[in-house]
Amino acid sequence: MRANAAAPVVIPPRDGLPDDGRRRAIIEAVSPAVDGGRFPVKRVIGDTVVVGADAFADGHDVVSVRLRHRPPGAGDWIEIPMDELGNDQWRAEFRVESLGRHAFTVAAWTDAWATWRRDLRKRIDARQDVAVDLRIGAAMIDGASARARALGAADDGRSLASWATELRAMRPAGDTAGRALDDGLDALMRAYVDRAHETVHEPILEISVEPAMARFSTWYELFPRSTSPDPKVHGTFRDVIARLPYIIDLGFDVLYLPPIHPIGLTFRKGPNNATEARPEDLGVPWAIGSPDGGHQSIHPALGTLDDFRALVSTAEARGVAIALDIAFQASPDHPWVREHPTWFRQRPDGTVQYAENPPKKYQDIYPFDFESDDWPGLWAALEDVFRYWIAQGVHVFRVDNPHTKAFPFWEWAIARIKADHPEVVFLAEAFTRPRVMYRLAKVGFTQSYTYFTWRTRKAELAAYLTELSRPPVSDFFGPNFWPNTPDILHGTLQEGGRSMFEARYVLAATSSSNIGIYGPAYELGENTPREPGSEEYLNSEKYEQRTWDLDGPTTIAPLIRRMNRVRREHAALQVNAGLVIHDIEDDQLIAYSKQTPDGSDRVLAIVSLAPNEIRRGTLRLDLGALGLDPGRPVFVEDLLAGGTETWPAGGIEIEIDPAILPARVLQLRAAT
Amino acid sequence: MRANAAAPVVIPPRDGLPDDGRRRAIIEAVSPAVDGGRFPVKRVIGDTVVVGADAFADGHDVVSVRLRHRPPGAGDWIEIPMDELGNDQWRAEFRVESLGRHAFTVAAWTDAWATWRRDLRKRIDARQDVAVDLRIGAAMIDGASARARALGAADDGRSLASWATELRAMRPAGDTAGRALDDGLDALMRAYVDRAHETVHEPILEISVEPAMARFSTWYELFPRSTSPDPKVHGTFRDVIARLPYIIDLGFDVLYLPPIHPIGLTFRKGPNNATEARPEDLGVPWAIGSPDGGHQSIHPALGTLDDFRALVSTAEARGVAIALDIAFQASPDHPWVREHPTWFRQRPDGTVQYAENPPKKYQDIYPFDFESDDWPGLWAALEDVFRYWIAQGVHVFRVDNPHTKAFPFWEWAIARIKADHPEVVFLAEAFTRPRVMYRLAKVGFTQSYTYFTWRTRKAELAAYLTELSRPPVSDFFGPNFWPNTPDILHGTLQEGGRSMFEARYVLAATSSSNIGIYGPAYELGENTPREPGSEEYLNSEKYEQRTWDLDGPTTIAPLIRRMNRVRREHAALQVNAGLVIHDIEDDQLIAYSKQTPDGSDRVLAIVSLAPNEIRRGTLRLDLGALGLDPGRPVFVEDLLAGGTETWPAGGIEIEIDPAILPARVLQLRAAT
Repeated sequence: MRANAAAPVVIPPRDGLPDDGRRRAIIEAVSPAVDGGRFPVKRVIGDTVVVGADAFADGHDVVSVRLRHRPPGAGDWIEIPMDELGNDQWRAEFRVESLGRHAFTVAAWTDAWATWRRDLRKRIDARQDVAVDLRIGAAMIDGASARARALGAADDGRSLASWATELRAMRPAGDTAGRALDDGLDALMRAYVDRAHETVHEPILEISVEPAMARFSTWYELFPRSTSPDPKVHGTFRDVIARLPYIIDLGFDVLYLPPIHPIGLTFRKGPNNATEARPEDLGVPWAIGSPDGGHQSIHPALGTLDDFRALVSTAEARGVAIALDIAFQASPDHPWVREHPTWFRQRPDGTVQYAENPPKKYQDIYPFDFESDDWPGLWAALEDVFRYWIAQGVHVFRVDNPHTKAFPFWEWAIARIKADHPEVVFLAEAFTRPRVMYRLAKVGFTQSYTYFTWRTRKAELAAYLTELSRPPVSDFFGPNFWPNTPDILHGTLQEGGRSMFEARYVLAATSSSNIGIYGPAYELGENTPREPGSEEYLNSEKYEQRTWDLDGPTTIAPLIRRMNRVRREHAALQVNAGLVIHDIEDDQLIAYSKQTPDGSDRVLAIVSLAPNEIRRGTLRLDLGALGLDPGRPVFVEDLLAGGTETWPAGGIEIEIDPAILPARVLQLRAAT
Repeated sequence: MRANAAAPVVIPPRDGLPDDGRRRAIIEAVSPAVDGGRFPVKRVIGDTVVVGADAFADGHDVVSVRLRHRPPGAGDWIEIPMDELGNDQWRAEFRVESLGRHAFTVAAWTDAWATWRRDLRKRIDARQDVAVDLRIGAAMIDGASARARALGAADDGRSLASWATELRAMRPAGDTAGRALDDGLDALMRAYVDRAHETVHEPILEISVEPAMARFSTWYELFPRSTSPDPKVHGTFRDVIARLPYIIDLGFDVLYLPPIHPIGLTFRKGPNNATEARPEDLGVPWAIGSPDGGHQSIHPALGTLDDFRALVSTAEARGVAIALDIAFQASPDHPWVREHPTWFRQRPDGTVQYAENPPKKYQDIYPFDFESDDWPGLWAALEDVFRYWIAQGVHVFRVDNPHTKAFPFWEWAIARIKADHPEVVFLAEAFTRPRVMYRLAKVGFTQSYTYFTWRTRKAELAAYLTELSRPPVSDFFGPNFWPNTPDILHGTLQEGGRSMFEARYVLAATSSSNIGIYGPAYELGENTPREPGSEEYLNSEKYEQRTWDLDGPTTIAPLIRRMNRVRREHAALQVNAGLVIHDIEDDQLIAYSKQTPDGSDRVLAIVSLAPNEIRRGTLRLDLGALGLDPGRPVFVEDLLAGGTETWPAGGIEIEIDPAILPARVLQLRAAT
């Protein structure tokens, strides 16, 4: 019958064969990964990275799985066995201890030795004749012995050879064969395991290991020109140095300065964005460039490069990083307009294309043309701006409107800069659509402004905090919550008074590990808009020099000082992972907790979103999510108001009285 | 100040530049895709494929987005504009009309013309001077004119050139400039749009376009040797031909035969898996190979190759596909054991490694060694088995235990076979862990056996049906629900009697578009296990020839016939997408609906999981999910029992009386 007469079957050439079809192990779903490995995952130095993978093979052979990882700059992979969680899922972890790109992947193979050993145990338990099995095992040991010798491990090679001899001499049944299950032999075999047919997951995944401040930072923004004690005199870097003790006392660790470069004259704006500037008007710091220079120059009125370097080093010595604002745009007077006309869009009437949002025109600003034929020259010049300021000691940059510059530029420039300076932090000031903001984070921005400023209702806050604190978003996006900025005086602050300033500060400071305020406007409760319905400040410092009475009666500096100290003292507030929303029966109260991965610190915040009235509600803690026994009471320490309490398991009545404070921040512990 | 004295900044070489940094458009999250494009998505011929993508760019330029797709074998891409859904999300759709691999991707670019036109409209509305804008537009039109001429479209080139002249001559303000917004001009410009800097998504994604039966099929399995009218005579292919009218009358369209090859003699099993076979015992069809041949031979007792071909062509002519069982394993008597010893694992005692699950031994079966050094030879031989039977007219294969053969082999073999024979369907018989089953589907299996046979409780059925009917699973996994197989007589069938057989059939037939039964055991209600607690049949046909009384009083053939007709007549039952679980207040009643993508057919099933008692519960249809008005009554036609009703909006009391039928299947329409 085998010679069944049939038309011959025409077989096409055997193309498409893999390199080695004997790689039977399959690896899938390796995590963490951003967009399947297209972008690096972000972590902070010292983090424990938990890697998950699905790994399996056909049939019933034992599959061995190892995590491979490689610290930045290291040549060799480090291997760790992965633990089987069941259902083909595997897990391993490692710590990232150097800044830069830390690579990892997963290797798996069908493990003939482990399979043989597992089966031998079953055969012996069933009292089968294992004569042939012992000979099969001996042959495997011979192979391992040869691999050991090839690696120069002559002793191990000899030990293995003598094991092979012993197995071949064993009586095939009874207890003596049990010796073949010896743990020492197994350890030797694992050391020289046969991985000829192993599968290695592709692509190699990367972790961008960022400095600690990437995740935990407290920013203070001020306009240097407003720091002079004399309202008639332009503030200088020396005045900013004099302001440092105030900022440090409040507990901030990043001092962010709007652009410090020469300001353009052509189409300069006057106070409150007046289109006609008077001769004495100082202009807008973001209109960069004048005959005094461009992005690598300092506004003469602020001081010299030496003054700036003195500010950077003085601040750094006291634990404060100076963050520079990098705004990639030019005033019509920027030297590049003349030196590199191809970097700007030229109009057919011989003028340069100014910024616009038709029909609005911003004639004081020329955007760069990222479709310039000389894009490599433009990219290089922009990269050099960062490198120049890094050379002056700056390692934190707040980037203005990065979403109006080409994404491929950011991916290239940030990767290059961080290859040499992995300590550098980039904050993206992109207030735009969600996918655009997330893309900027994926291409390399360390931190990002967020929608926090406009999230004021309980449900939308809960949803947003949840989205930001979990993968996939938390694997690449570093939120930085700002209750105000020079561009955004939110309506709640305009209307809500001092309590609202307090509530929004505590809300930001407890829900996000990175926060910032634009001061002194914030701590002094500045709340007058340019006109009703506007989010612009009246007499904004963007257009003019201001003087602030730091000791004014309205200041909320005491609360900020206390809150920032709590942030420094509580590791739970220095991470976003582990955020849990808790049920509280009041639509103006929001309750959430954060905790460290090891559970050593747990902080609960309860904030009133209507902080001009007393609000009450029953709080039901999700004790399971907190890692606490759901049936036992909780010991509570009030970190802002002071005092301790013991809360029973189950609901507890909460009252938030803004006459005391519009929020409570509490450390939680299991009651003893 | 520009000459600020500072140490020169050392810049590393400008490496890593992209090919063209001017590609500003970003494309993300293109769907459908399986594992980021690693595997093809599965669809059925005639399907409308809905493609989604996120696409955006930096800044405020208009982004144009097009879907590109390419039918199997076509050389050129077909382009379709994608529609903007808001929030940077885009959508387009196309139909797949040829079997094979249909490719698609997304292209996007910042569209200077569309941006210019959008802005010109705003400028004109604001009564601005647009003199320079008209000149900018004219220059773009010049470019399009040149592109048109270069493509040989001289007429369009001339039209565009005259438009450019007209724009340059327009008065810069007032209504005449509005002519520049002419739709005809816009259409011409779109035809010759500047896409020099477009982004094309990678990787190219693929859709495996499968035949209609990949999604909708009704299988009947029988043992040919049990089809003889005379219990003493071995059944043949001619007997199977005689059985065809019965199978067709019941409404099945796939007839699946266990292996038809010569059966091994060495270690042949007797009835009920007896280890010692008597001379007259026929053996197990899965013990493939004897001196009569192997996988390309026919068991002499079944007939000749011509008989087999007659069966295939007779069945095919009447709308029934013959499905062959491909079991890649050998009896010790298989010719390959002698001809290709390297395809098997050789033991040091000179014997061949038999199948085992230590301490159990299956000495009648030799597995192939997928770690053979001659794996390319083995792969080729196994591929040839499929090609041989395809040449005999077979295009449906049920593959036995594919999860014990290397995944890379399946991916290679199925892709090669389907490249020449895209109509071929492979059903994976893998009853194993979820990730393994899903991987087999990803590497190419069209359909898969499932856990349906063991899903008997309401909650687990609802969860499983939901998982299978939605992405990501529904994009690659084609479930085929079997209430029984020769290996699985589930306890519910052993205990539940005739009503349970009816209920499980209706459950399968309405919840999965692909189903099958092992008959005549199923329709005759065969329910005796080999021993208590076993899922094996007593006197299983796997080990012996049986004779069945097809006209026996216990047959549920009438229900099967009716149910299968309803499946043929109702397109909603021929798809799994669109499955919705409905709330019914009884823990033994489950209710779910399916509908066609266009909503033209909606079928509701209510099945009792305890079909030996009357069950009642209030059904609350999710009318919104059904695309029906939640406030209006529903017109209901009972497709099994007959009759029509009008149900009010809101809850309706349902009673399932097994004395009538243990299930109801109803078509739903909006009441007029």
